[in-house]
Amino acid sequence: MSINYANLDTLKSFARLKRLVWPAHLKKLITAQRIRDCSIDAGSGLAYNYAAKSFTPEILAVLQELADEAGLIAKYRALVDGETMNTGEKRMVLHHLARGQLGKDVIHEGKNLRAFYLEQVEKINAFAGEVHSGGIRGSTGKAFDTVVQIGIGGSDLGPRALYIALTNYCAGEGMARKMAARFISNVDPDDASEVLSGLNPETSLFIIVSKSGTTQETLTNEAFVRRALQAAGIPGLVPEKHIIAVTSATSPMAKSSAYLTSFFMDDFIGGRYSATSAVGTAVLTLAFGSAMVAELLAGAAETDKLCLQPEIEKNAALLDALFGVYERNVLGLPATAVLPYSQALSRFPAHLQQLDMESNGKHVSREGRPLSYPTGPLVFGEPGTNGQHSFYQLLHQGTDTIPLQFVGFHESQRKDDLDFEGSSSQKKLNANLAAQIIAFAKGKGDANPNKSFAGNRPSSLLWARRLTPAVLGSLLAHFENKIMFQGFIWNVNSFDQEGVQLGKVLASQVLKGAPEDQELQAYARILGL
Amino acid sequence: MSINYANLDTLKSFARLKRLVWPAHLKKLITAQRIRDCSIDAGSGLAYNYAAKSFTPEILAVLQELADEAGLIAKYRALVDGETMNTGEKRMVLHHLARGQLGKDVIHEGKNLRAFYLEQVEKINAFAGEVHSGGIRGSTGKAFDTVVQIGIGGSDLGPRALYIALTNYCAGEGMARKMAARFISNVDPDDASEVLSGLNPETSLFIIVSKSGTTQETLTNEAFVRRALQAAGIPGLVPEKHIIAVTSATSPMAKSSAYLTSFFMDDFIGGRYSATSAVGTAVLTLAFGSAMVAELLAGAAETDKLCLQPEIEKNAALLDALFGVYERNVLGLPATAVLPYSQALSRFPAHLQQLDMESNGKHVSREGRPLSYPTGPLVFGEPGTNGQHSFYQLLHQGTDTIPLQFVGFHESQRKDDLDFEGSSSQKKLNANLAAQIIAFAKGKGDANPNKSFAGNRPSSLLWARRLTPAVLGSLLAHFENKIMFQGFIWNVNSFDQEGVQLGKVLASQVLKGAPEDQELQAYARILGL
Repeated sequence: MSINYANLDTLKSFARLKRLVWPAHLKKLITAQRIRDCSIDAGSGLAYNYAAKSFTPEILAVLQELADEAGLIAKYRALVDGETMNTGEKRMVLHHLARGQLGKDVIHEGKNLRAFYLEQVEKINAFAGEVHSGGIRGSTGKAFDTVVQIGIGGSDLGPRALYIALTNYCAGEGMARKMAARFISNVDPDDASEVLSGLNPETSLFIIVSKSGTTQETLTNEAFVRRALQAAGIPGLVPEKHIIAVTSATSPMAKSSAYLTSFFMDDFIGGRYSATSAVGTAVLTLAFGSAMVAELLAGAAETDKLCLQPEIEKNAALLDALFGVYERNVLGLPATAVLPYSQALSRFPAHLQQLDMESNGKHVSREGRPLSYPTGPLVFGEPGTNGQHSFYQLLHQGTDTIPLQFVGFHESQRKDDLDFEGSSSQKKLNANLAAQIIAFAKGKGDANPNKSFAGNRPSSLLWARRLTPAVLGSLLAHFENKIMFQGFIWNVNSFDQEGVQLGKVLASQVLKGAPEDQELQAYARILGL
Repeated sequence: MSINYANLDTLKSFARLKRLVWPAHLKKLITAQRIRDCSIDAGSGLAYNYAAKSFTPEILAVLQELADEAGLIAKYRALVDGETMNTGEKRMVLHHLARGQLGKDVIHEGKNLRAFYLEQVEKINAFAGEVHSGGIRGSTGKAFDTVVQIGIGGSDLGPRALYIALTNYCAGEGMARKMAARFISNVDPDDASEVLSGLNPETSLFIIVSKSGTTQETLTNEAFVRRALQAAGIPGLVPEKHIIAVTSATSPMAKSSAYLTSFFMDDFIGGRYSATSAVGTAVLTLAFGSAMVAELLAGAAETDKLCLQPEIEKNAALLDALFGVYERNVLGLPATAVLPYSQALSRFPAHLQQLDMESNGKHVSREGRPLSYPTGPLVFGEPGTNGQHSFYQLLHQGTDTIPLQFVGFHESQRKDDLDFEGSSSQKKLNANLAAQIIAFAKGKGDANPNKSFAGNRPSSLLWARRLTPAVLGSLLAHFENKIMFQGFIWNVNSFDQEGVQLGKVLASQVLKGAPEDQELQAYARILGL
């Protein structure tokens, strides 16, 4: 299949898709048989069930044509084989390589990048092993018991979401977590100050994470931490022995002697796709050990491989992507909600929000020309059942339709449950989840319009027996690949973020003194600057 | 002014508003003078600056007509005077009364409700005082040091957001927080299990919060807690001496002897509006003492009073509401983001999400008839600068326009800051905030479309010198009143939530055994039920 980099609105299959009439109300489409049939293996035992999506066999057939015409699998293969898919910045996109190679070896400036990423994993494992065994200790001789990740955006959201998810898994397995982790991200001094106020400097190990080595927020928080370590006034405490770096080999940080050690990533792994690179694996390996991180990476790699399947009814991420485009560009729906029925995934929606909105919130094609159709949707979410008692009112009875992505698991993470009034909490949780899918899909008439539910709110369900490290890796890879496929369909570059630049430039003008822009100056004055 | 309960699309002023041409690009509208001029006192030193909203003097004039024609102030007065504004459930709406009476005395079944709410405040203050002084202790004789709020939705999101905000304020004032607070909300057993795993039962005091006394998630988590207290096997530990209740006087919980004491609210304070009732004040008074909570309530009351002002350029919440309706119903924008540049407000967006989406996510009028125009928008947000490194890409360069609500403060909460590379972290934070407002409003052309910013993204800014308890109260009341005014404009009942019922009914069918609905059964099976 040849690769066709064309805009969505030039594809014949998209024109056909738009001509298809809106399918019947979901209450007519959804049957018990469809629920049993419409399920795809998404890796590691994770399944994608799409029975409650608005589709007919005819729509599926045209979505398959769209996948073929847009050459989505060929583009994915090109990406993993090292083609320059980040066109704006002229970079390869290699986060898949950090967790297992699907395609060819990728050689850059004489270096095999698979070997390079693998080497980082091994270096991290060796370092973490030494920390856990007490071979590497704090500068006053005490064992490290806490790791603090200092990073923002992709250096924070993904690793934090994964850390929260795995913490309770450990408890459920009866395994001691090896180290507690904390995170500092915001340049608001309250963030660093609060985290530091709860730490023992002698037993804390800090990871400074910045690919470029120039991220303003992160360098500021690094300085904050160094001052705190100095100010603690602990005899013998040497800050350099408590701080490690994760950065690119070419960054200013890489050359500094101010770190105990450094682990590397490179320009081919974007921040929001870096959770399975050293950005995520350093803190996670320190917290949970190398075996658990290996499971996480293997889960992601398994899903990556499944995503090469060209048949959409066998490729969960691909089909999920196509449904999203159908909802966005045919049905005209501007937002989508991620609703994990799992406390362990409490910050997973915040990570997906970055992953999706920063990747596909674009107004130009990969060739840099303005687009005339909507691209990435607004993504938001909170854990169920909390969301049920919050914004679900609008989802059920508001005037807009918002497609829903549910996530659920048979078992809880901590395996600490209670039977109350005939059912366990986990059962109650999942009864609510099943109930919501049906309520959203089928609705319910009532003589009183205030008590009637229009239904016809599409949703899909990602589920597994339990949220193991492997399932977590698969879940992460599912969304990464879904978003990548959507970027291909919209013909945008999902791997740059030019939209963050202007604010940085203007902020630095403010900090350098009176900016030229009179209005900027006026706002700076209002804000006490 | 007589009260006109008419749908928005029947108002002459709305027809006029729709005929007004879209105003010029914000880069032409916004001037340093406009930034200095367009500011309204929102109470307690909080100011609402709307210079970066898309409006002309002509639009403001018609918005004033709309406010007058819809009788918004008259409706607000009717509400505080005890009219039955929750029409579906035939209830008064009295959360304003819990923090100071604006209008007439409200007598219900012979009871003066102002006196009733005040009495609860006094009871809470007395109880908390005893706990703080050690007069009331755990059943094994140890002083309580931790309070755990068990509630969901409005019993969780608001109190939690306020607790987080005030925690760092205390640190900045050099005041010791009186007790730490934790929160359990999700029926996912991992939530309760994790919180309980970090507690000392002997020194923990639990608050069960449920207005009806029948909230499934909360009763389940109460049982979870009771079992944990029993299972701790601590000689002399009596669970009843560690648990208090916040509920309505008529609920089953109110009559139980299983609580150390109970504080009451009633049906006239909706869950999402209950943060300033006993639902919020019990946990906050235990954590911070009565003086701080009194400041919070006074701040809210000050703002409530300002909101009676009929001139829209003197009433921040009213003008904010009108801009929102203009953006939703004239400009056709479906979502809005809340972006606090303050780590202290990290969970405030989640509270606003409930407050707004559950109040105005309605498809019928207050009379129960279907509406033919959009109502409440999707609301989401995360603290800046974290959001800048996450979803701002889409806000700047995505294909949709999302109006923005910024919040900022001159000073940090903890007063622990660092000068680094010529500026403090707080300065960097606010330089970013000022920069973003300008970047969103004015944009910036570039020969490379990938580096160009269309701008014309409207925003407003709520700011104060510092996030004191009074400012926090004003901030909360600003949004509560804004949402109330919007509900009046859309002619919906902002105070019921019929949209949450269907899911509850279906979930209980699942829990009672095989439900009739075949599709519900199929999903239940997939989820391991």
